[in-house]
Amino acid sequence: MIRKTVAWLVGTTLVGTGLLLSTPASAQFAKPEDAVKYRQSALSLMGNHMGRLSAMAQGKAPYDAASAQRSAEVVSYVSHLPWEGFVPGSGPEAVKTNAKPELFKNMDEVRSLAKKATEETAKLPGAAGSLETLRTQVGATGKACKDCHDKYREKI
Amino acid sequence: MIRKTVAWLVGTTLVGTGLLLSTPASAQFAKPEDAVKYRQSALSLMGNHMGRLSAMAQGKAPYDAASAQRSAEVVSYVSHLPWEGFVPGSGPEAVKTNAKPELFKNMDEVRSLAKKATEETAKLPGAAGSLETLRTQVGATGKACKDCHDKYREKI
Repeated sequence: MIRKTVAWLVGTTLVGTGLLLSTPASAQFAKPEDAVKYRQSALSLMGNHMGRLSAMAQGKAPYDAASAQRSAEVVSYVSHLPWEGFVPGSGPEAVKTNAKPELFKNMDEVRSLAKKATEETAKLPGAAGSLETLRTQVGATGKACKDCHDKYREKI
Repeated sequence: MIRKTVAWLVGTTLVGTGLLLSTPASAQFAKPEDAVKYRQSALSLMGNHMGRLSAMAQGKAPYDAASAQRSAEVVSYVSHLPWEGFVPGSGPEAVKTNAKPELFKNMDEVRSLAKKATEETAKLPGAAGSLETLRTQVGATGKACKDCHDKYREKI
C-alpha cells in the first residue's frame, strides 16, 4: 500500500507535469480518486450543457438565444479543465473510472484529441447566436467529444 | 412514482424558474439526480481549486503566482454555476444528497448566502497576485462557503 502510494506520488509529480493542455506546474491530486473526481466533475458539467445545446439543435427544446449563449460559454470555459485530471496511475488498474487503460498509454493521441475538442468548444459561443450556426457547431463539437469517447472511454 | 415524477416536473418548471443567481429561463434537469450531479460537479471543481489556494495560503504548498491566478479564475467562474441545481424536489426526501431539507425551505437565505459567496470568489483573481492578498481573500471566501455549509450541508 505504501509502495503503491509512493509510485502514485512519483508518477504524479514527475510524469504528470505538463501532461496535457492546461496542467499547472505541479500535479494537484493527493490520490487517484481525486483526479478521477476532478475530471469527471468537469466532463459532467460539459455534458450537461452540451445536452442543453443538443436539445435545441435537435428541436427537442425551443431555441433560446440567451440560454444557448450561456451554455456555449460554460462548455467552452470548462473544456479546458478536465485533461489535467488524466494523470498517470489514475486508470482502472488503480481506481474506479470509465477511462480505458489504453488512454494512459497513448497520451500523445489523447492530447491531440483533447486539443481538437477544445478548439471546437471555443467556436460554440460565436455560433450560439442562431439556431442554424449552433446546430452545425454542436455537431462538430459532439463529434470531437465522441472521437475520444469511442476510443478511450468504456461504454456507459 | 408517477405522482412523484409529476410533482417534480411541476416544481421544477414553475417554482424552479429564476430560482437562484444564474438560472436560465427553464429548468434543465430531467430528474432530481441530474440536478444533484450538476451542483455537486460544480462545487467539487470549486473545492478542488479552493484547496489549492488554501494550501498556498497556509504555507502547505509553495506560492506560485500563475497557478494561483488560474485557480482563482476557475473558482470565480464556476461559482456561478451550482445554484441552478438546487431546484425544488432535489432534497434528501427524493434523492441522495448532502443538502439538508431546510435548504429548500429557506431559499431566500440560501440565495443571499450564495450571492455573498460569489461576491467573494469574484475578488479572488484580483487578490491572487501576492501571497498576502491571496491569503486574506481565501479566508474571506472560505468563510462565505462555510457560512452556507454549516447551516445547509450535512456534515461530510
